[in-house]
Amino acid sequence: MELIVVSNRGPVAYDRDAAGNRIEKRGAGGLVTALRGLVARHDVTWIASAISDEDRVVAGEPTDAVVLVAHDPAAYRGYYDAIANPLLWFVQHALWGLATRPELDEATRAAWHDYETVNRDFADAVVAELDNKPDAVVFFHDYHLYLAPRFVREARPDARTAHFVHIPWPTDWSVLPATWRHAIHDGLLANDVVGFHTERWCRNFAYSCRELGRDASAETTLTHHAISVDVAEFEALAQSEGVLAREQELVAERPELLVLRVDRTDPAKNILRGFHAFGRLLDEHPEWRGRVQLLALLDPSRQTIPEYVEYREAIEQVSRELEQRYPGSVQLRVADDFPHSVAAYKQYDVLFANSVYDGLNLVVKEAPLVNTRDGVVVLSENAGAYEELGEWVTGVNPFDVQGQADALHEALAPAADERARRARATRDHVRAHDVQEWVEVQLADLSTLSS
Amino acid sequence: MELIVVSNRGPVAYDRDAAGNRIEKRGAGGLVTALRGLVARHDVTWIASAISDEDRVVAGEPTDAVVLVAHDPAAYRGYYDAIANPLLWFVQHALWGLATRPELDEATRAAWHDYETVNRDFADAVVAELDNKPDAVVFFHDYHLYLAPRFVREARPDARTAHFVHIPWPTDWSVLPATWRHAIHDGLLANDVVGFHTERWCRNFAYSCRELGRDASAETTLTHHAISVDVAEFEALAQSEGVLAREQELVAERPELLVLRVDRTDPAKNILRGFHAFGRLLDEHPEWRGRVQLLALLDPSRQTIPEYVEYREAIEQVSRELEQRYPGSVQLRVADDFPHSVAAYKQYDVLFANSVYDGLNLVVKEAPLVNTRDGVVVLSENAGAYEELGEWVTGVNPFDVQGQADALHEALAPAADERARRARATRDHVRAHDVQEWVEVQLADLSTLSS
Repeated sequence: MELIVVSNRGPVAYDRDAAGNRIEKRGAGGLVTALRGLVARHDVTWIASAISDEDRVVAGEPTDAVVLVAHDPAAYRGYYDAIANPLLWFVQHALWGLATRPELDEATRAAWHDYETVNRDFADAVVAELDNKPDAVVFFHDYHLYLAPRFVREARPDARTAHFVHIPWPTDWSVLPATWRHAIHDGLLANDVVGFHTERWCRNFAYSCRELGRDASAETTLTHHAISVDVAEFEALAQSEGVLAREQELVAERPELLVLRVDRTDPAKNILRGFHAFGRLLDEHPEWRGRVQLLALLDPSRQTIPEYVEYREAIEQVSRELEQRYPGSVQLRVADDFPHSVAAYKQYDVLFANSVYDGLNLVVKEAPLVNTRDGVVVLSENAGAYEELGEWVTGVNPFDVQGQADALHEALAPAADERARRARATRDHVRAHDVQEWVEVQLADLSTLSS
Repeated sequence: MELIVVSNRGPVAYDRDAAGNRIEKRGAGGLVTALRGLVARHDVTWIASAISDEDRVVAGEPTDAVVLVAHDPAAYRGYYDAIANPLLWFVQHALWGLATRPELDEATRAAWHDYETVNRDFADAVVAELDNKPDAVVFFHDYHLYLAPRFVREARPDARTAHFVHIPWPTDWSVLPATWRHAIHDGLLANDVVGFHTERWCRNFAYSCRELGRDASAETTLTHHAISVDVAEFEALAQSEGVLAREQELVAERPELLVLRVDRTDPAKNILRGFHAFGRLLDEHPEWRGRVQLLALLDPSRQTIPEYVEYREAIEQVSRELEQRYPGSVQLRVADDFPHSVAAYKQYDVLFANSVYDGLNLVVKEAPLVNTRDGVVVLSENAGAYEELGEWVTGVNPFDVQGQADALHEALAPAADERARRARATRDHVRAHDVQEWVEVQLADLSTLSS
């Protein structure tokens, strides 16, 4: 089956080294990692945004597998920094304090126009690609591209398209002006298949469609299947030189018990409440002081967006306060350092993921796969992965700081056999339901379109 | 039909005058006004909280029509100031910025226990009343009393109960710990009838039940019917001496065109964005400067709750800034002065109600009834009343400040015949669907229970 994959970020990014030679880097993010499996085994053209300067140079060159779309830079900023993040991201993760924010104004309207422009650029690139591969199935990804499927459908009524939404879907879209929310739903409903990680987001989508007078099940096929990990690749990575070196350092300096969180510095990840809960744990349980440490490995995220800059500063502040109160209790590293994260995956006693909302949360599938200490996972009930792993993790309400402190306390001291049982069950589940399975399911859905 | 009405506030409140004599005041708020019609025409016992010191004295005396429940004062504070307001109110009006608030902690848990205690007090009072009037139908009101119906049902399995929820119902209750949200839904589902102002809140309730594994339509009867105004009483009030005196003052000092808002100082009312929109109107349309004034008559609300104190301060700040930029453009009055509001109802050219969310919004039914200038109503799409009046008002998205500025501009200058047509249609609608109709519909629902 021929496939055209469309996502904002592509499988590779380009840069130049000091000598001025082009270098190729693997694209970042779980989506790209997951979809790389597709590229290896199928006839795929991948359409993505040219983001770096060197990407823009590559965009002008003839290519086979990857088509980079060079958007107008100002339009890309409006599309990415004002609409996709934070507006859509905040709506879909319920992050706005609606009493005062957002305020949609003239600038937001201009940015919405940018969002339309960039989506049209993508649609044009898809249509051009369909001219070369008329039988290809188009596979759109995520909240950057809600409008593109309708534009493709208008130009090519017979195109076969699917869209996978990787983030939560809320039922109430009234934060957006009526024309925008209609356009978003109409764009998604232009697809033959719309997929989500969980049944919950799927149900919510059907509901929000109905609130706008649309019957999702009559217009498209709704599916849900959680994305997963490339197990072989991940296990190899865990044994790689870079990871082993970081693990050795970590073992040398680790406390008796390690509570780990690995996240982007995103308000949706609920990092502030996590620190508060950990502080509360030490307040209430003097027996843990000096024995347990919170290691927060945070990848700096979206630092062109004020909300994200503020959030990162608030994290650094709360971490300093906690370290002052309980010296040695916390280590915060804000850096893009995946080998360090994987080394820590192997060493945690408790993995703490308390997201406000989370489409899935891949960390809680990756880390148990390589953990060596039968660590316990404390997981937000609002993370998509909770629907899948709920039986073996300790669930927490992300808003209940006391509940999280209690959960950490319990997670630090369960019986060894119970820890082992839950860790094994989680690992077995991820192995049995890996990213290849997810890919096969998606392809099966798509192949029903390609007949 | 014998009725037991249960609500937090009752139809009368008691105080003492300077001479130490008991005085009786009419209870405040739309709910109490609406329900007073019931008392006049049916055999009603009304159970409510003793709030003032004098209420607590009355609570100890034998009474017929009004039973005041004297709660433990500390429990009442947790119930009212921590759980009902702001927690439930903020959840149901989507006011939390979930990235950082709320943080549920030990104090919140204690307050939840208070909420249970006060609900149990109410249930005990209902059960005692049912011992006197075994055939009475019990009619619970609003978000203060979600748990009481289940307690009554447990004590009196054959009791016939209905519950009317006067505020919006969201689909997603995940802000609350699982046990709390289950208790709230379970409490409501213990009723024979559950009613809302609009079909939208009703649908959302059915959805949130399903998300918790409950089938609302199998367990109870869901109804929706918007509450309304006592037309005769309101028209008499508009001609009362107090109102006529205030109107005379207002006419003497009024600008050419008056934009009016009448609200409690509640974040759900969206007062800050309203000022921003009015400022934007004057920025963009110099022709209105000096001709149009925003009159904001705001009733100070819930000033024991920090969020409400902050919000009131922010309103005063933004009003000062606007008045500095455009002298004479704004008049802010923060006072409990209903005659002034009714006088202003008669005089507005534009009535502005841009609520973030609003169960109904009675102001937009009251004011058009007595307005003398064929004023235009600019109304939030998220107010329950929009479902009813949408055809004749100018709808706005409450988050879209630019859209609100545009709507005010349009509302200030429509053709006279169009203004008259819309004002008349709104007035006719409210007259035809007054509070008596609402009462009759509720009684009809209840009477199916009393057979």
